[in-house]
Amino acid sequence: MKFCLSVAALSFGSVAAFAPSAFTHNTMKAPASSSSLNMALPEGVTPIIIGVAADSGCGKSTFMRRLTNIFGGDVVGPLGGGFGAPGGWETNTLVSDLTTVICLDDYHLNDRNGRKVTGLTALNPLENNFDLMYEQVKALKEGKTVSKPIYNHVNGTLDTPETIEPTPIIIFEGLHPMHDDRVRDLLDFTLYLDISPDVKLNWKIQRDMEERGHSLESIMASIEARKPDFDAYIDPQKKLSDMIIEVLPTNLDKEDKKTLRVRCIQKEGVPDFAPCYLFDSGSTIEWTPSPEKLSSPAPGIKLMSGPEEYFGSKCQVVEMDGNFDNLQELVYIESALSNTKTKFYGELTQAMLALADAPGSNNGTGLMQTLAAFAIRDLYEKKSAQAAKAKKESTTAAAAA
Amino acid sequence: MKFCLSVAALSFGSVAAFAPSAFTHNTMKAPASSSSLNMALPEGVTPIIIGVAADSGCGKSTFMRRLTNIFGGDVVGPLGGGFGAPGGWETNTLVSDLTTVICLDDYHLNDRNGRKVTGLTALNPLENNFDLMYEQVKALKEGKTVSKPIYNHVNGTLDTPETIEPTPIIIFEGLHPMHDDRVRDLLDFTLYLDISPDVKLNWKIQRDMEERGHSLESIMASIEARKPDFDAYIDPQKKLSDMIIEVLPTNLDKEDKKTLRVRCIQKEGVPDFAPCYLFDSGSTIEWTPSPEKLSSPAPGIKLMSGPEEYFGSKCQVVEMDGNFDNLQELVYIESALSNTKTKFYGELTQAMLALADAPGSNNGTGLMQTLAAFAIRDLYEKKSAQAAKAKKESTTAAAAA
Repeated sequence: MKFCLSVAALSFGSVAAFAPSAFTHNTMKAPASSSSLNMALPEGVTPIIIGVAADSGCGKSTFMRRLTNIFGGDVVGPLGGGFGAPGGWETNTLVSDLTTVICLDDYHLNDRNGRKVTGLTALNPLENNFDLMYEQVKALKEGKTVSKPIYNHVNGTLDTPETIEPTPIIIFEGLHPMHDDRVRDLLDFTLYLDISPDVKLNWKIQRDMEERGHSLESIMASIEARKPDFDAYIDPQKKLSDMIIEVLPTNLDKEDKKTLRVRCIQKEGVPDFAPCYLFDSGSTIEWTPSPEKLSSPAPGIKLMSGPEEYFGSKCQVVEMDGNFDNLQELVYIESALSNTKTKFYGELTQAMLALADAPGSNNGTGLMQTLAAFAIRDLYEKKSAQAAKAKKESTTAAAAA
Repeated sequence: MKFCLSVAALSFGSVAAFAPSAFTHNTMKAPASSSSLNMALPEGVTPIIIGVAADSGCGKSTFMRRLTNIFGGDVVGPLGGGFGAPGGWETNTLVSDLTTVICLDDYHLNDRNGRKVTGLTALNPLENNFDLMYEQVKALKEGKTVSKPIYNHVNGTLDTPETIEPTPIIIFEGLHPMHDDRVRDLLDFTLYLDISPDVKLNWKIQRDMEERGHSLESIMASIEARKPDFDAYIDPQKKLSDMIIEVLPTNLDKEDKKTLRVRCIQKEGVPDFAPCYLFDSGSTIEWTPSPEKLSSPAPGIKLMSGPEEYFGSKCQVVEMDGNFDNLQELVYIESALSNTKTKFYGELTQAMLALADAPGSNNGTGLMQTLAAFAIRDLYEKKSAQAAKAKKESTTAAAAA
């Protein structure tokens, strides 16, 4: 389970490019036993809690960058270790002015040695402390501060807990955000990153073989070893999610193993969430954009939008197959999308351009992650407005009494 | 060649429902030897000439009704015969305030007995007087009156000619409007109604077997007999047309032999003609409309729009497969169409509703014919505006000299 190192390291290292102040924290001497990440929660606002489920190496780190980019503010974590300092791991938590991203690996019940004793993988629910997770998600949702454990991905140890104060948006990302009913019921919005086996293998080959020098055999063996627990405990959460981002091989050319087809499956009937669609609500539309307005490398580009059933639930799907040549031209696709939850026409393209160097910015993974980020921002703003209204009404009622 | 009887009869009989004054003409005693159809051509305007090519029984009559419906004005022809008076055939020409529809069968070189001598079909160019056709199209285009022959479909005779005065829009419809280069060069816009063999057989069965009691064998034999000349002389004109309306069996259900898929193939680069498209210019779009906004009987409804090549020419295609349940809901499809050449949103639906009883009003034949009619109106208006501008400039220049 080296994933969270990679999440934090990538998130931190890359976000740093856009938030220079993060470097200060990186070199800052953090307290030895705990770190306190203080972000004030506005009065009367309780946090909105988002669950993001995915296996390791599924692009969660990039998604977190897209989220924090859209929510704004400087990124002030993770402190210490990670990028360039493998021995100095101190937290998995990423914080910006509005957002706290908590990695659920911190709720592992045993350290790496402990799992050697039980013989179970970290994907097994028995290796995760759902009671504590529930208590802390509940406390944070109520605006309370918690003392959260830290799973040290470098050493595989459980380190001294850190203090987490609630911010307006709290993301719980990891293997099991929707596994436990009690936790799931507290989540305001849930997202599952569903990477098809073919794509996952390609990504792991690229990361672990090309970048880290692992052998193809060891990568295949690792995937194979994880598969039973993944299928049993992680995969079923997608049925329970409000939004599923599916990443599949392209349909445009059966020989092409690199180009991606990405589907954003949006459940109907989720409170405060109106699904995004192309051109016309309720229609099924397959769209090959005008090559004069959008250039794309072989095998081209094709989008789709329409109602579907997903494990018995009514959904609205937006799909993009293929890559952009020029990210600026995304504004043309943006013009065909409705319910993007942007505040002005062009904001979607602007958000993608701000992270143009991030993986997936030239394809549907970047687009769908950015759409998800805007949806989460919109949910937060609706919830804040409702809280402000409720507070005003109760103040008025109290004054009248 | 009983087609033109059917054209005129249907056109007259049905249009009468919307233009009560036409009944007056129907019962009016026309001069025995010739009829004069007087419609003044506005000063400075030369007629716009439209060629419409198609085999018999291909829906030309309905198309003419859609045209005259959109161009407005009372219909004042054909006089005499036709509907309910098979022996009284006197003209094939249909006239409204703006439009004259001339049937090219009137340029047959020989009467029915003459063709028995030559042993040629009326589809053979040798049986048609293209020299006279050219002279008269040219004269009409120059605003001159002509004395046009009449082919009597009932008797198969060539009757005493009738006087035709030019109206602002003149439609030449029949088997060979684009066959002769000289005639074709005079046409401002050309349209080909391309009915696929399967559909044509179905239509002939419906008309000739179910309505007229012919045997299936005789219908098949008649189609078979016409096929070589049709393929040699009629079909090649579609390559030369500005717009082709293709009528094909549905793709939605291979077992369904009645539902139609209709394609409007619009050439790029035709002067004063901007092709119609769905949602976005230059894109290829397949659209299954929201069933909540448009109800349709089995096998459903699907539209398509996009650029294509047609015999080496760049085209923009709009396609509709399937039927409407409720013609009122066409306004939803209209909302997705651009370059319809309507003057207000809803005019397309209104035009379809005005002829709701006409064949094809619940499917793509009606839709594409109506789109073609609006395109022709638009061409006429552009040409009139250009003529008015040119006249004003020459007046100004003359005054200045």
